Amino acid sequence: MFDEMWGAIEHLGRDDRTRGYLRDAWSPADLELREWFRQEAARRGLDLREDRNGNLWAWWGDPSARPGVVTGSHLDSVRQGGAFDGPLGVVSAFAALDELAAKGFEPARPLGVACFTDEEGARFGVPCMGSRLLTGVLDPDRARGLTDDGGDSMAEVLRRAGRDPGALGRDDETLGHVGVFVELHVEQGRGLVHEGAPVGVAGTIWPHGRWRFDFRGRADHAGTTRLEDRDDPMLPFARTVLRARELAERGGVVATFGKLRVSPGNANAVPGLVSAWLDARGGDEAAVRALVAELTAFSGAEVAGESWTPAVCFDAVLRDRLALVAARALARRTAAPGAADGAVTPVPVLATGAGHDAGILAAAGVPSAMVFVRNPTGISHSPEEHAEASDCHRGVAALAAVLEDLCQS
Amino acid sequence: MFDEMWGAIEHLGRDDRTRGYLRDAWSPADLELREWFRQEAARRGLDLREDRNGNLWAWWGDPSARPGVVTGSHLDSVRQGGAFDGPLGVVSAFAALDELAAKGFEPARPLGVACFTDEEGARFGVPCMGSRLLTGVLDPDRARGLTDDGGDSMAEVLRRAGRDPGALGRDDETLGHVGVFVELHVEQGRGLVHEGAPVGVAGTIWPHGRWRFDFRGRADHAGTTRLEDRDDPMLPFARTVLRARELAERGGVVATFGKLRVSPGNANAVPGLVSAWLDARGGDEAAVRALVAELTAFSGAEVAGESWTPAVCFDAVLRDRLALVAARALARRTAAPGAADGAVTPVPVLATGAGHDAGILAAAGVPSAMVFVRNPTGISHSPEEHAEASDCHRGVAALAAVLEDLCQS
Repeated sequence: MFDEMWGAIEHLGRDDRTRGYLRDAWSPADLELREWFRQEAARRGLDLREDRNGNLWAWWGDPSARPGVVTGSHLDSVRQGGAFDGPLGVVSAFAALDELAAKGFEPARPLGVACFTDEEGARFGVPCMGSRLLTGVLDPDRARGLTDDGGDSMAEVLRRAGRDPGALGRDDETLGHVGVFVELHVEQGRGLVHEGAPVGVAGTIWPHGRWRFDFRGRADHAGTTRLEDRDDPMLPFARTVLRARELAERGGVVATFGKLRVSPGNANAVPGLVSAWLDARGGDEAAVRALVAELTAFSGAEVAGESWTPAVCFDAVLRDRLALVAARALARRTAAPGAADGAVTPVPVLATGAGHDAGILAAAGVPSAMVFVRNPTGISHSPEEHAEASDCHRGVAALAAVLEDLCQS
Repeated sequence: MFDEMWGAIEHLGRDDRTRGYLRDAWSPADLELREWFRQEAARRGLDLREDRNGNLWAWWGDPSARPGVVTGSHLDSVRQGGAFDGPLGVVSAFAALDELAAKGFEPARPLGVACFTDEEGARFGVPCMGSRLLTGVLDPDRARGLTDDGGDSMAEVLRRAGRDPGALGRDDETLGHVGVFVELHVEQGRGLVHEGAPVGVAGTIWPHGRWRFDFRGRADHAGTTRLEDRDDPMLPFARTVLRARELAERGGVVATFGKLRVSPGNANAVPGLVSAWLDARGGDEAAVRALVAELTAFSGAEVAGESWTPAVCFDAVLRDRLALVAARALARRTAAPGAADGAVTPVPVLATGAGHDAGILAAAGVPSAMVFVRNPTGISHSPEEHAEASDCHRGVAALAAVLEDLCQS
């Protein structure tokens, strides 16, 4: 069933030239994926709800009666991203429910599949939009006023999609339905490759943030303006890129300039303004902060913070239980039929530099955990992002066992 | 009349937020400007023609009878450019004809006002499109296939504007009408400020060109990819920007990276590709070539030449005659009425780093010259580009005298 679902969405939003995905929130591709989610829910007789912030919930059982066990991820992508970041967690969620249903399991607690809206922030610049709004850590006025590259505000985009932008904001009723959240995700690094394990669980999410650097100069003619008369902001930008790398190496953190706007952007004009977005993360918040402070001073740019997510430490008891339950499920798959559970080693616990909705929920006090599936190259946010089908199937088996275990408590 | 014409077009294509102009070729603003040109021609009873490449010609007298004296410039702009680059030459051309008509002058040769299409190359990347096609130095197949940022080919854009893209190409009949061409232009530097002169003439146009540098790396996740595992093309790009500046200083030329495309362009992704356009110019062709060769080797990028314009030396006899006629006209404006012409010093001769249609025509063998009007800041290709009204009026007087002189020969 995993493979059929995967095949049904694989082509949606794909750029056939690059094989990269363009699944911006509320784009036609995203709307098709949301419709696919509705149909998968309907096919299984799940109760589908869209909350005030556009997140989708498909329930097996009634979460108003008792907070449920929820699994899922997101369906949007970064621009020219891969197929797995997000959709693997959603498809695996439905597949895990199918495994449980097939063996006659009846959940003692409500069991839900979630699809969070705009996790990547590709369109409006703020990642984990759906979960940030849901938990109230993002001001809905700020969200409504964010604009995309075409200059459309999020409020306009929502209205055009038939949603009410006035409804955005903290939603305690919906949040109250989530007793525990487990997000399955393709690993975005080679930790599991190094461990030789197909599946792992998340220990911590690094603190991370985004800053906009505006380098201002003076637009001028590229042919007639003498070098000594120029105020070319491309030069301090270039120095800042190289400095960021040095500081990141020294501080043991990562720093990236991946998005840029050059104005006016004519080949025959010295630019007047270079705007560049810095993404910085690391295991040590102080080291990330120090890099940003030092780079700000060095750059001479106007610097504005766009988002900041503190370190997330997932619930250690939950994490360790999941690591053991997942390991047992994987061991059963390879053991002879009828063999008793032997002693197993828990699956590896990994720290990650990537933000996730599970981290936002954890920070809001919802017991949360993550299951990672091995990525042979470690590459992510790129068409080359990959997981082997056999590892995806192992992920589903581990997730099903984890959900079964959580529903019994 | 200069001021009225200036006032009539000042607002067309202006971004009221930045005061910069957005007058891409064949955009709605450009089409309005072309319509304004037609009306100015009609108002004066001039014979209006649009040639096969979209250039406009307004004739006083019949150029089929005898090659004429032509003046003019262009009406399109770079993005977020200034008001003067282009339009000053067209408005001054009509105003100079008015001055001649007002004093009862009857040209012994046909006298024409020209508006060249897509001089800046802001839309399709190749500057002096209209004059390059007219003179046959640009292959019409290549022109038709060029695309704008929206992915539309020039052929499609022309068709939408009601033009026949199949007609593009060398046009000897139209070119044969141009006996001599004089382009008036705002100076794009501070040469005339240093000389203390309101008006000058062009000596040479520096050789100049455009190259596209493609820096290829590997798109990856900005949070989870360790620094040592990255292949981030932003780093060699940054080093190349700084190196270009060093090489330009050493070689006595100018080099600019003013246009950039970062792909995929997500704040949370290491880029996979950085494409950057180098503009390089200088008085010495060998020095420009050496910079590009050295930078290509240093960068590690794939480098493709997009345009190259060899040095243009304007006809020295014509240039010196214009410099004297212009100086006499300016002296007459300040002398007592009826005073005889005394000995005057010719206006300054300036070299320039900017490309112009006059340079393309000169290279095609048409006797050509340029008149420059003082720019107090020297800034160009920016909303701050400026010329004082009094200097613009002096420019018109000088141009009228030059046209009168050329028509008598």
